Amino acid sequence: MDVRAAVAFKAGDPLSIETVQLDGPRDGEVLVEIMATGICHTDAFTLSGDDPEGLFPAILGHEGAGIVREVGAGVTSVKPGDHVIPLYTPECRECEYCLHPKTNLCQKIRGTQGQGLMPDGTSRISLNGEKLHHYMGCSTFANFTVLPEIAVAKIRPDAPFEKVCYIGCGVTTGVGAVVFDAKVEPGSRVVVFGLGGIGLNVIQGARMVGASQIVGIDINEDRRAIAEKFGMTDFINPKSVDNIVEAIVDITKGGADYSFECIGNVTTMRQALEACHKGWGESIIIGVAGAGQEISTRPFQLVTGRVWRGTAFGGARGRTDVPKIVDWYMDGKINIDDLITHVMPLDQINDAFHLMHEGESIRSVVAY
Amino acid sequence: MDVRAAVAFKAGDPLSIETVQLDGPRDGEVLVEIMATGICHTDAFTLSGDDPEGLFPAILGHEGAGIVREVGAGVTSVKPGDHVIPLYTPECRECEYCLHPKTNLCQKIRGTQGQGLMPDGTSRISLNGEKLHHYMGCSTFANFTVLPEIAVAKIRPDAPFEKVCYIGCGVTTGVGAVVFDAKVEPGSRVVVFGLGGIGLNVIQGARMVGASQIVGIDINEDRRAIAEKFGMTDFINPKSVDNIVEAIVDITKGGADYSFECIGNVTTMRQALEACHKGWGESIIIGVAGAGQEISTRPFQLVTGRVWRGTAFGGARGRTDVPKIVDWYMDGKINIDDLITHVMPLDQINDAFHLMHEGESIRSVVAY
Repeated sequence: MDVRAAVAFKAGDPLSIETVQLDGPRDGEVLVEIMATGICHTDAFTLSGDDPEGLFPAILGHEGAGIVREVGAGVTSVKPGDHVIPLYTPECRECEYCLHPKTNLCQKIRGTQGQGLMPDGTSRISLNGEKLHHYMGCSTFANFTVLPEIAVAKIRPDAPFEKVCYIGCGVTTGVGAVVFDAKVEPGSRVVVFGLGGIGLNVIQGARMVGASQIVGIDINEDRRAIAEKFGMTDFINPKSVDNIVEAIVDITKGGADYSFECIGNVTTMRQALEACHKGWGESIIIGVAGAGQEISTRPFQLVTGRVWRGTAFGGARGRTDVPKIVDWYMDGKINIDDLITHVMPLDQINDAFHLMHEGESIRSVVAY
Repeated sequence: MDVRAAVAFKAGDPLSIETVQLDGPRDGEVLVEIMATGICHTDAFTLSGDDPEGLFPAILGHEGAGIVREVGAGVTSVKPGDHVIPLYTPECRECEYCLHPKTNLCQKIRGTQGQGLMPDGTSRISLNGEKLHHYMGCSTFANFTVLPEIAVAKIRPDAPFEKVCYIGCGVTTGVGAVVFDAKVEPGSRVVVFGLGGIGLNVIQGARMVGASQIVGIDINEDRRAIAEKFGMTDFINPKSVDNIVEAIVDITKGGADYSFECIGNVTTMRQALEACHKGWGESIIIGVAGAGQEISTRPFQLVTGRVWRGTAFGGARGRTDVPKIVDWYMDGKINIDDLITHVMPLDQINDAFHLMHEGESIRSVVAY
């Protein structure tokens, strides 16, 4: 079938709106009409050419929501008409990872997904006979896409696509890191480095679970107002203090019970660990550092009780937890509306990337 | 009262056997007749002068067992005749740390303990009118010592002193790291870096909780036999493989569920982390690195699910958990007898240090 898509032909070029050919779903696959997709920094990272695993030409996009229109043979968990969110971290419920209680990193289709292909080793997408790569198993920058059944989360039909598409990545990454990975307890003191979209979602996750203090750290004072709206109780601008670690230990009366690094900077990753409370503080790395960069600390920091961990997709098991997060949004427990700053048609997708680079967008959404 | 003690007059000198003066217990303190004490690397570290917090002159020793002979005012939890193990990590059961579920690092008397003093800021020990420092709140290199009530664990009276004194440090550090900090589950694959006394105790802790594979790592092939006796199932000599991390991932079929670094080397700390299984592997640092040394890794190691933590005194709450470990020994669940390679009188304590430095002792014990 013909599909309208934003094609990334090569690194560094703007996306090009094209009519591409999409093959129908094969065994265990579903055809989804994408109704809305968010624009994420990870798409921009790959498009820039800095992503060593980036493949071109490809249809980018991994933060979507849509409606199942057709299912391949053997598909049992969804049917045409079901509303779904595509999952770049699938959940097969049968691999060693899915069956382990401590991880959400399903490995069932990791090999082919990393090659930009469907699980059978082929692509469903082409343009004038040339194969295009799938991206993160999703390729939501197109009004239709084909996904493995294990890579769609069925959600309630009354959730608005142009809002809940954000749950496909950013919301879950931030809220999930608090709820599923750190398991922040009520009354905790939480510190959040970086008040972009992920940081704001960490903040509202911490508020939802009853954190008593939520300290936001950002060099941009302009982030303060919205962070307070999402639950931040204290703000520190690192430029205004001599030593950010000491400032955090001071304001939290001993250190963070949980700190979250949402920037991707190895220096702030170290600060986030060392600002944790002796004895029990846990620091969770969410941000993705540049290739080859390393984190360091004195082992004494760990021997005296701090824990260093990381998170991917918020520790969420996609098919199980994404529908819950949609419920939390629909029940008013989390706020997505105020994070979506721009909604635009596919034709303006390059403008959406510009807005993100200029810092004017927390989340721009393409509505098909 | 007059007490026979091994005095450390200054860094680098042998210990000197002296008759020192010990004042009786004050409020909240107890007088303990030390019946046996182990010689630990930490004593040697302080005696060498490399310990930046070392104080002289002092009575070293922190791994003892003995009998309460007298109690000060207000002491309620022990009485004369009770058998006890001194605790360098006390358990007051009322500070913020003791009341937190995730730590054993009681801070109640930390300040004065670090100054080599009793909680009231004075020393009970002197020689010819000159004050001697307490050491790690214990000073077990003397046949009597005074301890805070919160720094003694009451143990069963049938446990042999010259064996269970080792529970005062090494046994608890190793077994406890497995049981209380890592919380290793039955069926786990465990990797242990360094097969000295701590490593052997980690191994037997892992065996006790039902680990299915216990891989020992040491450059000394001679450690293999005793490690196997304690439960090691596989041995890798890093000198015999090209890449120790790959060798561990291979032998464990994907990586360690839990790894323990028992050496104190920042390079092996990194290897121990990176040899953990993606998604859920946890690495626990037990060894103490040299001053100023740092650990490093790529944050990707954590973001893909590995966890980096440390342990002190095996995560054990001394008054609560040390008596349990004594029971485990008395019930035959753990082996201490084969770890104690030499028993000697106080007069030969310098020989005990020599044996340790020459690698001939896993644990030498002074019996009074």
